[in-house]
Amino acid sequence: MEKVFSYQHLYEFTYNVFKGIGCADADALIATKTLLSADIRGIDSHGVARLTGYVRLWEAKRINATPDIKIVHETPSTATVDGDAGLGLVVAPHAMQIAIDKAKNVGTGWVSVKNSNHFGIAGYHAMMALDHDMIGIAMTNASALVAPTFSIERMLGTNPIAVAIPAGAQPPFVADFATTTAANGKLELLQRKNAAAPIGWVQDKDGHDSTDANALKTGGVLLPLGSDREHGSHKGYALGSIVDIFSAVLSGASYGPWAPPFPAYVPMPQDMPGQGLGHFFGAMRVDAFRPADDFKQHMDQWITRFRNAKPAPGHDKVLIPGDPERVMEQIRMKEGIPVTESVIDELNLVGEKFGYRL
Amino acid sequence: MEKVFSYQHLYEFTYNVFKGIGCADADALIATKTLLSADIRGIDSHGVARLTGYVRLWEAKRINATPDIKIVHETPSTATVDGDAGLGLVVAPHAMQIAIDKAKNVGTGWVSVKNSNHFGIAGYHAMMALDHDMIGIAMTNASALVAPTFSIERMLGTNPIAVAIPAGAQPPFVADFATTTAANGKLELLQRKNAAAPIGWVQDKDGHDSTDANALKTGGVLLPLGSDREHGSHKGYALGSIVDIFSAVLSGASYGPWAPPFPAYVPMPQDMPGQGLGHFFGAMRVDAFRPADDFKQHMDQWITRFRNAKPAPGHDKVLIPGDPERVMEQIRMKEGIPVTESVIDELNLVGEKFGYRL
Repeated sequence: MEKVFSYQHLYEFTYNVFKGIGCADADALIATKTLLSADIRGIDSHGVARLTGYVRLWEAKRINATPDIKIVHETPSTATVDGDAGLGLVVAPHAMQIAIDKAKNVGTGWVSVKNSNHFGIAGYHAMMALDHDMIGIAMTNASALVAPTFSIERMLGTNPIAVAIPAGAQPPFVADFATTTAANGKLELLQRKNAAAPIGWVQDKDGHDSTDANALKTGGVLLPLGSDREHGSHKGYALGSIVDIFSAVLSGASYGPWAPPFPAYVPMPQDMPGQGLGHFFGAMRVDAFRPADDFKQHMDQWITRFRNAKPAPGHDKVLIPGDPERVMEQIRMKEGIPVTESVIDELNLVGEKFGYRL
Repeated sequence: MEKVFSYQHLYEFTYNVFKGIGCADADALIATKTLLSADIRGIDSHGVARLTGYVRLWEAKRINATPDIKIVHETPSTATVDGDAGLGLVVAPHAMQIAIDKAKNVGTGWVSVKNSNHFGIAGYHAMMALDHDMIGIAMTNASALVAPTFSIERMLGTNPIAVAIPAGAQPPFVADFATTTAANGKLELLQRKNAAAPIGWVQDKDGHDSTDANALKTGGVLLPLGSDREHGSHKGYALGSIVDIFSAVLSGASYGPWAPPFPAYVPMPQDMPGQGLGHFFGAMRVDAFRPADDFKQHMDQWITRFRNAKPAPGHDKVLIPGDPERVMEQIRMKEGIPVTESVIDELNLVGEKFGYRL
């Protein structure tokens, strides 16, 4: 069972909850916009359904609602940002803006962030670059659920990468994907339906292939993109590792199995080697490489050519990264955003603490 | 059947062939070193076995042995390089050096290259950054063999990505991988043994699953990392696309299905939208983010922790990206490099044109 809410309605509720935990006006606004960008784009696992999780982290004193976000190290094209344990939803747009400002000055900007928390969807931050005729890049480490190739131990998060590239008449290219074969949200969908997972998504606690959508609840792990060695899982493992190192080793955040967990009831890992979660952002001015109009004209040609690639039997067309989310955004801004009853109940439990109901 | 040659022996032969086609001394040296780095590291498909292919491209006037490589556009942290149709083996190290020099000045350097050719292994170029305490990144587009998710048309090359990250006492982290499930070289190994390919590597000309290691010879395609939509092939397709756009749309090279073919007997595509193949390089000073010693100490801890992750049954340890190639390098520098008879025959046919035999 689910109920449909307008964007504006979810926006007001979410904003009020962020105000309730003590966020400044501007921070509550940006946190709300960042969080709900997931719901609008159809990535329901990363949107308003997570709001209660953020509040519980604040209650557990793992999130600071009034952070002093600052640059602790920099060069003309780089910065390291200390998020002061703030909401990732606030720290990340702040850091991405620094990358954009650096790119304005010297062509590109690269920002590694420590002492942050879950930042919503990576794609939102990467897309901030588009309005400036820049390519945007965003990635983050996350609590460990993924075993490297040849291992049964949780060492990496789903560690997503997003890359947003502007075009001219065509909509932008926006890739945003976990470096695992399937993200945890897809397992949750199967759990609700009592359905089996395809072979290659998860492995049980002993390292055997499994179709159990609940495998992570009994010590199993998510598999890196590629699923097994024969199908290139060492590449997915390398990608997830690169995200971990750029986001956390470069900044001074906690990496690998020490990344802090999202659920507030899970104890923090022992002997953490850094502070909080880490992110990494990049912005590249396209006119730092060639005139922006030339670039956009060729991106239009690239996109048009790929959209018209010969489809395989049973498919009517080839998609460009970002197409499904853009279509979903058009639908949901008009028709509203469905939220399941159990999420609504949780949200109301938390909202009532501050005097609000959905 | 194969014969084993010392590195020095292969080096002299290869150097003489590059001199034979008219390369300047310094260019012949760097081309030889770049090409043979593949043989040393065990990536036999990209080493001396390709030398005859380069010579044929030179004979077909698609490679310029005396290029005037130059920067055609730049900012403090970026450059676009015109390779003047030179050997990618020469153009790429030149461009990577520009990235390193820019990083010395402003923290990071990013170089997109047009009008180039096949550049050997991506890992070699990325590893140039290591001596400077920098993270190195290298990628290239390549002639189209890969169909996007939901398509049967060859639109992308195997488009590899390499990332090299320095450590302290530990050897560096070096990832270097095609953005397909399996690279073409792996199919060639199966062809020689008359063996079947695993499901998920290739698709036949009609878009059906295939285990035919010769599928590419009858209109089939390589599949993006992930193999099929259910296992994340849209992520491999996005990665290959990002490599294509950074390497070729940003620089003004030919992209997607228009990327020039490596075999000299294959006609050039019609209506090419740019010049030659494209590459993309990045260099990031680690001390642009935190003191280099801090970074290296944490990389050592990262590597040690991952190396000691609990292995799955049937495996004795977890590998760090770059481990297998480093071990191979130690073996081959001592024991020599095996070359198959058919490759030796081809090399001698070409070498004799310039008065040299292997």
